[in-house]
Amino acid sequence: MLRSQTQSKRINCPNANLGDMEETGMQTTKFGLATQNRSQFINITGRLAELVGKEKWLNGFLTVFCPHTTAGITINENADPDVTRDIESLISQLAPQNAEYRHCEGNSDAHIKASIFGSSTQIIVREGKLWLGTWQAVYFCEFDGPRQRQVYLGFNGN
Amino acid sequence: MLRSQTQSKRINCPNANLGDMEETGMQTTKFGLATQNRSQFINITGRLAELVGKEKWLNGFLTVFCPHTTAGITINENADPDVTRDIESLISQLAPQNAEYRHCEGNSDAHIKASIFGSSTQIIVREGKLWLGTWQAVYFCEFDGPRQRQVYLGFNGN
Amino acid sequence: MLRSQTQSKRINCPNANLGDMEETGMQTTKFGLATQNRSQFINITGRLAELVGKEKWLNGFLTVFCPHTTAGITINENADPDVTRDIESLISQLAPQNAEYRHCEGNSDAHIKASIFGSSTQIIVREGKLWLGTWQAVYFCEFDGPRQRQVYLGFNGN
Repeated sequence: MLRSQTQSKRINCPNANLGDMEETGMQTTKFGLATQNRSQFINITGRLAELVGKEKWLNGFLTVFCPHTTAGITINENADPDVTRDIESLISQLAPQNAEYRHCEGNSDAHIKASIFGSSTQIIVREGKLWLGTWQAVYFCEFDGPRQRQVYLGFNGN
Repeated sequence: MLRSQTQSKRINCPNANLGDMEETGMQTTKFGLATQNRSQFINITGRLAELVGKEKWLNGFLTVFCPHTTAGITINENADPDVTRDIESLISQLAPQNAEYRHCEGNSDAHIKASIFGSSTQIIVREGKLWLGTWQAVYFCEFDGPRQRQVYLGFNGN
Repeated sequence: MLRSQTQSKRINCPNANLGDMEETGMQTTKFGLATQNRSQFINITGRLAELVGKEKWLNGFLTVFCPHTTAGITINENADPDVTRDIESLISQLAPQNAEYRHCEGNSDAHIKASIFGSSTQIIVREGKLWLGTWQAVYFCEFDGPRQRQVYLGFNGN
């Protein structure tokens, strides 16, 4: 599901050149993922943790950003998959696919859900690890799939 | 619609004084905008891009913050204005203006929408540009206008 | 309600050792709070402001992060408590506790609300103060209490 499209871009602040200190400043990267269903929550926590390790990001903020307008990012339970199914199901009752919409592409419900869930989340990285609660996972929320999607990442720290 | 109320405040980290390196650290600014309707999504992407250029913000995080409790910030489609009309319309069905509310100002629906959409968004700035998807725009969401409003901005990077 | 469980962790960027300049870089801390009801919005603005002062955080981004999957963080009105009661009440109509859910713990509504409100918020700290609007407060939103909860905080700045 996750394709190896990672492209890294390191943008160091000038201080990073002073001796052997760790790299600091803003760094960005992205990865692709292919969704299989119209509505689907994909747990991307493992992929994020792997990137944090590979990029040697130690302490700072990680922004996980969805560059699409019919998908979003949320944090919720990582244990029972029925939880995300319940979330998808209830939100689809609130914003049904076939209500009376003006937008003619038939995916207004997906745009509405994108704004309700939000386009990004911010995670604290602490000693090289995502500082999440025990039961938390980060989900890419597909609302108008199946499609090939991307996730943008920004890390500011050292 | 957008008034020239921009006030800049540069707060540089001490390193910014070392020679001719770029400014780094936290910088804040704000701008005002006047809304015309009770409910209205105003595309502020152009204004944000202009500020990023003017302030010479290159790489870092930009937080777009709404300091009001009956308005919010969201990211959604920039092409067909019917999309934001559909979002406004559906969300107003979910949180109607005239439901049974305790708060006596008649704008509880606007407070609810503010919490659903959220008070802020975080955008990655990369090589002097907002790193958004092709179809994304940043919207100031008015839910209890018309009013004179403000947008707070914080940039952390270099 | 707020217990004295604050544990501070300062992770300074290497520059912080150069002479008498202010500390810069990423710093994290957390605090606990005990909720009393199943659904409850707890104003944590005072606690956050106190921490910003105690930690001498001057200019930067503060991320307020909820590490639980049946609670969230939102910003809304600080004056009339009827506003948050209206928000709790309307959102509980949209995501009722006793709808047809698959998840067997009886708290799917709380998970749904957590994703609608979001797990975190980002606040600009400016000259040692939370840069909020006049009527804004930061709320910890309990949706499945009463429980002992935690709030994670990350500050990146100087």
